[in-house]
Amino acid sequence: MANQLKGIAASSGIAIAHAFLLEQPDLNIQKEIVSDADREITRFQDALDKAKMELETIREKTSVQQGEENAEIFSAHILVLEDPEMIEAVQAKIKDDGVNASFALHEVSSMYIQMFEDMDNAYMQERAADIKDVSQRVLLHLAGVENTSLAAIEEETIILSHDLTPSDTAQLDRQYTLGFVTNIGGRTSHSAIMARSLEIPAVVGTQNITSLVQSGDLLIVDGANGEIVINPDEPTLNMYRERQRQIAADKAEQKKLVGEPSVTAEGTCVELAANIGTPDDMKGVLENGAEGIGLYRTEFLYMGRDRLPEEEEQFEAYRTVVDQMNGAPVVIRTLDIGGDKKLPYLDLPEELNPFLGFRAIRLCLEKTEMFRTQLRALLRASHYGNLKIMFPMVATLEEFRAAKALVEEEKKRLNEAGYSFDEHVSVGIMVEIPSTAVAAAAFAKEVDFFSIGTNDLVQYTLAADRMSERVAHLYQPYHPAVLQLIKNVIDASHAEGKWTGMCGEMAGEETALPLLLGMGLDEFSMSAASILPARSLMRTLNVNDAQALVERALVCGTAGEVKEMVHTHAK
Amino acid sequence: MANQLKGIAASSGIAIAHAFLLEQPDLNIQKEIVSDADREITRFQDALDKAKMELETIREKTSVQQGEENAEIFSAHILVLEDPEMIEAVQAKIKDDGVNASFALHEVSSMYIQMFEDMDNAYMQERAADIKDVSQRVLLHLAGVENTSLAAIEEETIILSHDLTPSDTAQLDRQYTLGFVTNIGGRTSHSAIMARSLEIPAVVGTQNITSLVQSGDLLIVDGANGEIVINPDEPTLNMYRERQRQIAADKAEQKKLVGEPSVTAEGTCVELAANIGTPDDMKGVLENGAEGIGLYRTEFLYMGRDRLPEEEEQFEAYRTVVDQMNGAPVVIRTLDIGGDKKLPYLDLPEELNPFLGFRAIRLCLEKTEMFRTQLRALLRASHYGNLKIMFPMVATLEEFRAAKALVEEEKKRLNEAGYSFDEHVSVGIMVEIPSTAVAAAAFAKEVDFFSIGTNDLVQYTLAADRMSERVAHLYQPYHPAVLQLIKNVIDASHAEGKWTGMCGEMAGEETALPLLLGMGLDEFSMSAASILPARSLMRTLNVNDAQALVERALVCGTAGEVKEMVHTHAK
Repeated sequence: MANQLKGIAASSGIAIAHAFLLEQPDLNIQKEIVSDADREITRFQDALDKAKMELETIREKTSVQQGEENAEIFSAHILVLEDPEMIEAVQAKIKDDGVNASFALHEVSSMYIQMFEDMDNAYMQERAADIKDVSQRVLLHLAGVENTSLAAIEEETIILSHDLTPSDTAQLDRQYTLGFVTNIGGRTSHSAIMARSLEIPAVVGTQNITSLVQSGDLLIVDGANGEIVINPDEPTLNMYRERQRQIAADKAEQKKLVGEPSVTAEGTCVELAANIGTPDDMKGVLENGAEGIGLYRTEFLYMGRDRLPEEEEQFEAYRTVVDQMNGAPVVIRTLDIGGDKKLPYLDLPEELNPFLGFRAIRLCLEKTEMFRTQLRALLRASHYGNLKIMFPMVATLEEFRAAKALVEEEKKRLNEAGYSFDEHVSVGIMVEIPSTAVAAAAFAKEVDFFSIGTNDLVQYTLAADRMSERVAHLYQPYHPAVLQLIKNVIDASHAEGKWTGMCGEMAGEETALPLLLGMGLDEFSMSAASILPARSLMRTLNVNDAQALVERALVCGTAGEVKEMVHTHAK
Repeated sequence: MANQLKGIAASSGIAIAHAFLLEQPDLNIQKEIVSDADREITRFQDALDKAKMELETIREKTSVQQGEENAEIFSAHILVLEDPEMIEAVQAKIKDDGVNASFALHEVSSMYIQMFEDMDNAYMQERAADIKDVSQRVLLHLAGVENTSLAAIEEETIILSHDLTPSDTAQLDRQYTLGFVTNIGGRTSHSAIMARSLEIPAVVGTQNITSLVQSGDLLIVDGANGEIVINPDEPTLNMYRERQRQIAADKAEQKKLVGEPSVTAEGTCVELAANIGTPDDMKGVLENGAEGIGLYRTEFLYMGRDRLPEEEEQFEAYRTVVDQMNGAPVVIRTLDIGGDKKLPYLDLPEELNPFLGFRAIRLCLEKTEMFRTQLRALLRASHYGNLKIMFPMVATLEEFRAAKALVEEEKKRLNEAGYSFDEHVSVGIMVEIPSTAVAAAAFAKEVDFFSIGTNDLVQYTLAADRMSERVAHLYQPYHPAVLQLIKNVIDASHAEGKWTGMCGEMAGEETALPLLLGMGLDEFSMSAASILPARSLMRTLNVNDAQALVERALVCGTAGEVKEMVHTHAK
């Protein structure tokens, strides 16, 4: 009998395979009185060392296979392992109470976990999860227990688990893991983000998949709709297999467009570019035929380390990408850190509202030495191709002018030192703050280009935290006000002979493409995986229809009306 | 020899008097081993009871003298006193360790204070300050020590202190306290806010005033400029006395305008209204000749208590104000709670970015029973005068429609129950979210009026937390984008025959008045103390000049250019 279960759609695609139930080893920590406390402290230290080596290996492997951004979490884990306060507390407990290392660690970590969990705030909850993951790893070493090795799975399966820790997901073998399903988690939980990044179909937040399903049951996972079918009957199985084939066929069809230009039905050319987080992402960019890099985030250079990156290291990271793009445009965003993204070696304040706080260009204009180093590295890399510099979170003209002045000063210094660079390197800004979108006409006179960052622009325009589930219904990219702001930015740039791109998630969305085309957006930058579907869709659109659509969208009252109108028009 | 010191300007005005150095009693808590733990626990309980009675008295007194909003802090203090977790921890410590109550309380409260202070976040820091204040109060009772009574001061003084706790400020006697100066604190610290509310000149954050000055020294406090002169010479003293006289003369001149209409030089009438927090604020409203209430905040009804207020209680609070305004308009804002403003009896989530979170209308549309109770009370009060209902934090038309539908449903129910109310009661919205300001034309078709809340609108438009010192330079009410949004809202309302008010701090500012007049703002709502200065200024302006000024302001590039332009024009 077919049995259906509904969860939260985390990563699209259809997977059909037998279930593999991942159980967490029960360590059953007992308090023991030990006579030789020093020996216990040594055992504890050994376990820490082993865990650290293990984490460094996983970190390396993840960085290579899944990119630097996905590996960051393990740098955080290593920092937890090295936290002197926690280590000393465990050692003191072993010594003062004369107890075994496992018990001491369990007590201390439980206290920290409890403390962070009690704070009832998403960021602190994540810290609790990290400490749990790390101390579990050390406890396994202390017990000499082998972790259930996901890496050891050698047949195609769908992984079921209460939750997948970052350590678990790092070990998933893409060849055999066709999909996964968890009891807990939401669309923005770590496991969901990893699934999308690995392009593995996944459903999270099912509440009780691990008690409803046993290892060996046949499962269908429909990641786009958040549905799971347990032991499906033949007709159901055939239906999903047909849909799998259709998805594969669409993908194959799109693959043919890799080397093709991005043109509309009537022949208008647009630029479809990719967003990247590290040079490692270039593989996907080239495989999917991106015509440029619309957003190269540079945070990876600063994260998971204990001091600022040198100019030389940055220069190499920028040049590598510029080289590989072979003359195609590469827009590099200067450091967007602060707020919820912290660096241990920069003394940044805790903030009540980090998204409205001290971050990105605001921080760089205060820490000018750090900023100048990045600007020099960027300028030097500009000599090797078509590099463009972009400042994030610009809210006022004064900020742009101050940042631009630093670029000019560094140009002068590089000139004096005899370095080569592109004298006419383009310098533009992200438009992600409402003030800049509204006052775009004034900015357009001074910047070389705009790139609209819709993730933040939508969040600020609607005053709705994009990470908060409670106000998710207000995070509306299709709110008529957002569309009016986008159009205002594009129009303002064209009036001054400049261009506008978009590098938020919206740029790759099916509903957005006709609207953005109609508004005259020049460059669409998205995740590499979205480029071919976008190119395929672009070939069915034409500019006149798209312009008519925009006119109707701008006078809609609500986001719902806009979306309905676009969908009706698409039919 | 005259000696000058610079601090942070906290509350304007000039005070000249001898210094009174407020020293905190040193309790010198010692650990003592007690034989009768039960007796210590009883002593602890007695001290808690005394502290609670004391706090209730202070709370009452503050509420009457300074309004309900200023009294809220003491409700929070009572909650700290009643915290079972803390009480049990102290009792356990007395019992298990056999120590005296003072030592046990000091240990437990220090742990909490440390924990909150370590969190390095403004909100948590305030919690730490509250616990410190409350436990100091209980410790004084345990020691049988009389607190230095500020209330006992019987001559005109300037109070100097390391910091002023909420308990201290509540005891300040306005008759004798001519000014105060502290070592720590910023413009938005509790003591600074209280000073402005009490209209006492104050300077905070001087670092070391308490070590530079002794009781009895003669001081000049220039609150507007953040300056203190210690033991001034005769010429300096005369100069400041002359400035004091000038300020007093201006005030007396303005007093004559209490019963006068608000008109421009050429005779255009505008409405100057007041913002109020409780019915107690009506005294200031009537004394300053406000022509209406532009913002009646209703949070006081919900705070400092353990359950939701009843319909009857709310009805009385609304009717009192409507009655007193005698037919003049009273705009009442529905509950704006959530985010950083918490209610203990509503289970609200902790949020990473409370200003972008689940608050105000977002919350009311989920907790509809609570919201309906308020709407019924408002509708019933509308029978007694010119009441208008206003929804805060509206970002989408769907929200306005949903809230309006609830009003209509409650109208029907009241009709059936035979209650009288204004069938045509105006229902409008705050414009404080960029999406609403941008899409004002669509909203103007459906709402009865707009009131622009600049405090939040500026914060969201610039993506700069208005409570954060780190981004204070980006909180720019005169950013050309903010001015464009304000103008867009006013124009949109007029195009539909509706009106627009403003109830943010900007509405009372000298620089803003000519710009807002030029844009055609219909109602200016401000703190009662700002009304007469604004009426006085209004009589020097004329609409044509103001319109010309607006045209020039809208094409400025930066807030600095706007302000300079307005100031030059004013000369």
